[in-house]
Amino acid sequence: MRGVSIVGIGQIPVGEHWDQSIRHLAYGAVSAAMQDANIDRADALYVGNMLSGILLGQEHLATLIADFCGLRGIEAAKVEAACASGAAALRMGYLAVASGLHDVVLVAGVEKMTDTPSGSTTAALATAADAEYESAHGVTFVGLNALIMQRYMYEYDVPMEAFAGFSINAHRNGAHNPYAMFQRPIDLETYRNAPMVAEPINMMDSSPICDGAAAVVLVPTDRAREFVTGHHRGPVRILASASATDMLAIHDRRDPLFLEAAHLSSQKAYLQAGVGPEEIDFFELHDAFTIMSALSLEATGFARRGEGWRMATEEEIGIRGRLPITTMGGLKSRGHPVGATGVYQVVEAVLQLTGQAGENQVPDARIGMTQNIGGSGATIITHILAT
Amino acid sequence: MRGVSIVGIGQIPVGEHWDQSIRHLAYGAVSAAMQDANIDRADALYVGNMLSGILLGQEHLATLIADFCGLRGIEAAKVEAACASGAAALRMGYLAVASGLHDVVLVAGVEKMTDTPSGSTTAALATAADAEYESAHGVTFVGLNALIMQRYMYEYDVPMEAFAGFSINAHRNGAHNPYAMFQRPIDLETYRNAPMVAEPINMMDSSPICDGAAAVVLVPTDRAREFVTGHHRGPVRILASASATDMLAIHDRRDPLFLEAAHLSSQKAYLQAGVGPEEIDFFELHDAFTIMSALSLEATGFARRGEGWRMATEEEIGIRGRLPITTMGGLKSRGHPVGATGVYQVVEAVLQLTGQAGENQVPDARIGMTQNIGGSGATIITHILAT
Repeated sequence: MRGVSIVGIGQIPVGEHWDQSIRHLAYGAVSAAMQDANIDRADALYVGNMLSGILLGQEHLATLIADFCGLRGIEAAKVEAACASGAAALRMGYLAVASGLHDVVLVAGVEKMTDTPSGSTTAALATAADAEYESAHGVTFVGLNALIMQRYMYEYDVPMEAFAGFSINAHRNGAHNPYAMFQRPIDLETYRNAPMVAEPINMMDSSPICDGAAAVVLVPTDRAREFVTGHHRGPVRILASASATDMLAIHDRRDPLFLEAAHLSSQKAYLQAGVGPEEIDFFELHDAFTIMSALSLEATGFARRGEGWRMATEEEIGIRGRLPITTMGGLKSRGHPVGATGVYQVVEAVLQLTGQAGENQVPDARIGMTQNIGGSGATIITHILAT
Repeated sequence: MRGVSIVGIGQIPVGEHWDQSIRHLAYGAVSAAMQDANIDRADALYVGNMLSGILLGQEHLATLIADFCGLRGIEAAKVEAACASGAAALRMGYLAVASGLHDVVLVAGVEKMTDTPSGSTTAALATAADAEYESAHGVTFVGLNALIMQRYMYEYDVPMEAFAGFSINAHRNGAHNPYAMFQRPIDLETYRNAPMVAEPINMMDSSPICDGAAAVVLVPTDRAREFVTGHHRGPVRILASASATDMLAIHDRRDPLFLEAAHLSSQKAYLQAGVGPEEIDFFELHDAFTIMSALSLEATGFARRGEGWRMATEEEIGIRGRLPITTMGGLKSRGHPVGATGVYQVVEAVLQLTGQAGENQVPDARIGMTQNIGGSGATIITHILAT
């Protein structure tokens, strides 16, 4: 397998883009990434997206985006793995370059969830769960996560407020990210006063519904220096790409409080990269809900079982903490345009690794990890990146 | 890149499976393929599917199928490229094995289009077209193909009946395929009397709405003999895998009567395989509508422009003809469960190449080609297979 490097990144601000359709959102990110890598052509475009068929009546999305971005003729395909679609598309691009088939590959993640012509976004998101055994009974996606959080609080005797630190950290970092949806800090009082969404998950535990797009350019590592044009500190290598799954429905899992797919995919990634958790300088985890932050830290080797919530302090997860997480605001503050999130995470990791993270710069960041979660933990994809 | 071979195939009969949900359809094909390859485990499962989100309220489909097939933990992702989703998933599996990342990969195509709990299948299929510039105006998918066929008949002064031979050939072959939806021959009279769907496309020009699933097992060519267990004549190599796109909306194409993506992807495939059209022993083309058969033959190097329809005779495309096509019934007679079709085509090519095609066996079939079309020609994926 050839080494694969990232030589260009692009993103648009996350928010409610009522004036733009999904092709425009994608164009913004793709064109920025192409400019960053100084290319005007690619061999293929892989798109991570979950909901364009249901919400926008548009399948065949990758080909549409290739067309709209002026890339007539190139290979294009959409990859879907619920909220892990972005990382799944990245992985397909990684395989295309690693195999030797393609030399220059674009990967974009895009989602338009607001101002959609049809359907309810909440109902659409529930299609990530088991349609016949979960969503058919009316449980929403936040409802499923609430069941998990409730169980966690019961099993480990943890109060709701124990999760506040994840949200406070995300907003502290998002405040300095011009691409974040919510660019203002919150405090414990904000968390306490937040309206309940599905007990015990409140508004400050939850990532928002929003629109966004992010993109990266992948090339073989041995050609990466050709594309890096000065303003970067260097290309970023993909040291590891690993994907794993679990039972789709929570009630089928061996233990609903352990993210087996996070464990499996991170272990595979550590092995492939030849590093352990102690060498990870920062971790872009998937904080769709605060409970997922705790479970991800536990399954990925950063905390003991039942103790992930103890890391929700600035000393532990802040920019200068032991393991900085959600360094550009995470899903909570930057936003969670579902199929785009996995690519945003990687774009942000590249910013950190190339010293472009501004006020959020993690000192001496050399190795970063991203983890994208689909459904209530059934598909989890981990990437490890390094300069 | 490593060579990639197919060592197992599975399919279920195409039809209206009102008693089975999509997970059961997929299980039928996946378990048959696993049995054929004599495996009880795989490294990854890639699923081609277009409509499960819209019609069934089930995204995250690949992980669900991995779960339901007893493959807990393995990598899973869905690949979508409208009606070319099956071949797009195969291509992802091909990349995963070719890269050296995985050794045993399952690829499944599955679609459930009948007895769906929500929405109209006709409206869902229109999501393959440009939502804002085509389907928003009410044009259906058959409507778009009717515009193309009308133009073809006008430009080349061809009568409707010129296309009948494609349909007659498909049904002649499908009559001997136990997995085909329509297992009876038709004649010119049947074609003449068929009700009009969207002029000039009649019922006998059109592939049916149906349910189906097919699967293959991919391994590195140098390990293929370990998996082939006696009843086969041998593993089948994937000599070429190539994908190309065109503008999504017909009105944006340089010429609506030329399938540029078919031309591009077949030229890439010929180059990769080191063979030309004259060496192809049979061609599983994408006869969603008879007009697509004519256009595919023209763009892929088998007929001059405007003359593809002249091949619609038994001497040309019959089992013992110059270039046998749709040898197991094609989309018209076997059926077109859209996201599954690309995998059915490959399963059928393997049957031909291993001498298992029964009454439809193409004599001395050594090199076969499959071509899967998404939308009205915007994504076209070509594979060349050989023993």
